[in-house]
Amino acid sequence: MKQANAALGIVETQYATVTEKLELESGEKLGPVTLAYETYGTLNHDRSNAVLICHALSGDAHVAGYHAGEHKPGWWHDLVGPGRAFDTHKYFIICSNVLGGCRGSTGPGSINPATSEPYGLRFPLITIGDMVKAQQLLIQYLGIGRLRAVVGGSMGGMQALQWLHSASGRVESAILIATAAKHSPQQIAFNEVGRQAIMADHHWQDGNYYGERRPLKGLAVARMVGHITYMSEVSMLEKFGRQQKDDKDPFKFRADFEVEGYLQHRGDSFVKRFDANSYLYITKAMDFFDLTAERPLQEVFRGIGAKLLVIGFRSDWLYPIWQLQEIVRACKIAGVNATYCEIDSTYGHDAFLVEIEQEAHLITHFLKRVSSGYTAGDVYEI
Amino acid sequence: MKQANAALGIVETQYATVTEKLELESGEKLGPVTLAYETYGTLNHDRSNAVLICHALSGDAHVAGYHAGEHKPGWWHDLVGPGRAFDTHKYFIICSNVLGGCRGSTGPGSINPATSEPYGLRFPLITIGDMVKAQQLLIQYLGIGRLRAVVGGSMGGMQALQWLHSASGRVESAILIATAAKHSPQQIAFNEVGRQAIMADHHWQDGNYYGERRPLKGLAVARMVGHITYMSEVSMLEKFGRQQKDDKDPFKFRADFEVEGYLQHRGDSFVKRFDANSYLYITKAMDFFDLTAERPLQEVFRGIGAKLLVIGFRSDWLYPIWQLQEIVRACKIAGVNATYCEIDSTYGHDAFLVEIEQEAHLITHFLKRVSSGYTAGDVYEI
Repeated sequence: MKQANAALGIVETQYATVTEKLELESGEKLGPVTLAYETYGTLNHDRSNAVLICHALSGDAHVAGYHAGEHKPGWWHDLVGPGRAFDTHKYFIICSNVLGGCRGSTGPGSINPATSEPYGLRFPLITIGDMVKAQQLLIQYLGIGRLRAVVGGSMGGMQALQWLHSASGRVESAILIATAAKHSPQQIAFNEVGRQAIMADHHWQDGNYYGERRPLKGLAVARMVGHITYMSEVSMLEKFGRQQKDDKDPFKFRADFEVEGYLQHRGDSFVKRFDANSYLYITKAMDFFDLTAERPLQEVFRGIGAKLLVIGFRSDWLYPIWQLQEIVRACKIAGVNATYCEIDSTYGHDAFLVEIEQEAHLITHFLKRVSSGYTAGDVYEI
Repeated sequence: MKQANAALGIVETQYATVTEKLELESGEKLGPVTLAYETYGTLNHDRSNAVLICHALSGDAHVAGYHAGEHKPGWWHDLVGPGRAFDTHKYFIICSNVLGGCRGSTGPGSINPATSEPYGLRFPLITIGDMVKAQQLLIQYLGIGRLRAVVGGSMGGMQALQWLHSASGRVESAILIATAAKHSPQQIAFNEVGRQAIMADHHWQDGNYYGERRPLKGLAVARMVGHITYMSEVSMLEKFGRQQKDDKDPFKFRADFEVEGYLQHRGDSFVKRFDANSYLYITKAMDFFDLTAERPLQEVFRGIGAKLLVIGFRSDWLYPIWQLQEIVRACKIAGVNATYCEIDSTYGHDAFLVEIEQEAHLITHFLKRVSSGYTAGDVYEI
């Protein structure tokens, strides 16, 4: 695997800009819109081997390989490359930073052409539907009519679901991991606490902090809340227990326990690469996402020709398996070909980034069957 | 019940001050120490009918009855009064605000006699052991040698456990509800996020905010995180679903969903009655509490004559039932008389404040058996 790994080597983020304005679900118009994206592998002659990977809340277009001068590979590095599940010998892999993001795509930190200043809160509210609309423009720009697969975990899975909803004819298959057709009030509540932590930060200044001090503390708290929900009670027990830290900081409310130090570290490193306003916009888009808003899920799925692979993790309490089972049940009622797999991981929601070997196995075989034109929908457990 | 309710009527908080310094577990000395407390019912002739109720993180001494001019009764009002589970015809009920608190007892907002200014972070770190040590002085001050029962939910249960540890000879029985012998890393993590939210608030000023603007936003965020953990996924679904709010606030990141409005309301009302520094000190005391620090739990319990009633709630994921089962298992090994009851509530951790009828039934019978000198330890489910 290490050998294959090296083969992917240095990758570069590219940028596509649509100058005409994008009409958003809200009716507002936004433009120009730039999407940052990366590709791996080669588009085949009949342009039929493209796979779109959609990232989660804090992810970006850099899904695999290394950026020049960096030692950390992309966020799903072990799944993408020659001989890997998303085999770059077979597939043309695309990943783009979402609309509203802060990693190269147009978002609240981008320059508003109307004012020549960063948008801040003048940026319009965006939806998962808008993110997918922008992705469709990118796919078109790349000359691709139909995707072999659209794939995503967590918010990435919402985008994949949205593709099935708004452009199912352009999608041959979808892989949905640790995701939901709509947020429960508990999921909304955790996002809301993150937003409140950001907006409570003195430096947030109603979102007008660009060029000034940024609301780093609030954003770090938001990220800390997130990390608790990404882990499971068991994985925390195994990783930290009640282990106390060695350092002798005399401050009374220092990180005494390893788990406190871990959260603080995760918060502090996150703020270096993420924009607080993007956090607000993207989490709101997640909370408003509701595939059942107009009609029951089985009606949304009815008539879809795409084949689905749905993966859930038993210890994931942020996106609990009942939410994935609901999707699969609706598929079954609608006669959609869906394979459901429940993985017995202890890693909680993080499992979708961690349980690479199990995911690789499932994804490899699913894509092989999709590519050969045959899949038998099935339910199994690991 | 309403009739009996009226009978308790107006109650008043009282104050007891120990002028000699209290030696804390850390070795530091603190004094003078004042405890705010309330009592209900009458101490009998042989001073044998006293029951101490210990409050949770955000509670106070006002457990039942009404303060003059107020319409909201105490926090466990329906359990305390004539004919109720804590029957004021039979028992002399005591509840005191914890050391480190902000509701009349000495805490970080109290005046430091050395400086004539509020302590702020000069207040020493306190432990659950210190809280109980102060309670023991109060009990002594009231002329009571032995408690009929010590009772508490959540952090109140930790105090009851601590009584069993450090003064088991002074306790005839204990009622432990939705609590733990030590915090798991997940429990520590949630508390740490609350602390970080407070300390991230610009107005916190290293704890020196008394007389200035207080860190209300940070404290509200801490409380919001808390409230998510107090409810269950199911109780949130039942209470809020994805119900959206009616008001048309044009602000983009307003509370769109009912659950967001609820959390904001809870946060905002909490900051009116609670001190941010107390939140820091008390949560640290909870996180450091570890009854197993010196020896296994069964060894801690060995030889204890007190009878125990242990109550857990199945949907409580903040203090999951395995933590209560661990306590009961240790009791059984140590030969301690313990009755365990698991209540099938959907209210999550809040159940200990909500499932009054079920608790009343269990507590009434347990106290009756304790008072008659007979209890048969047992395990049952509701």
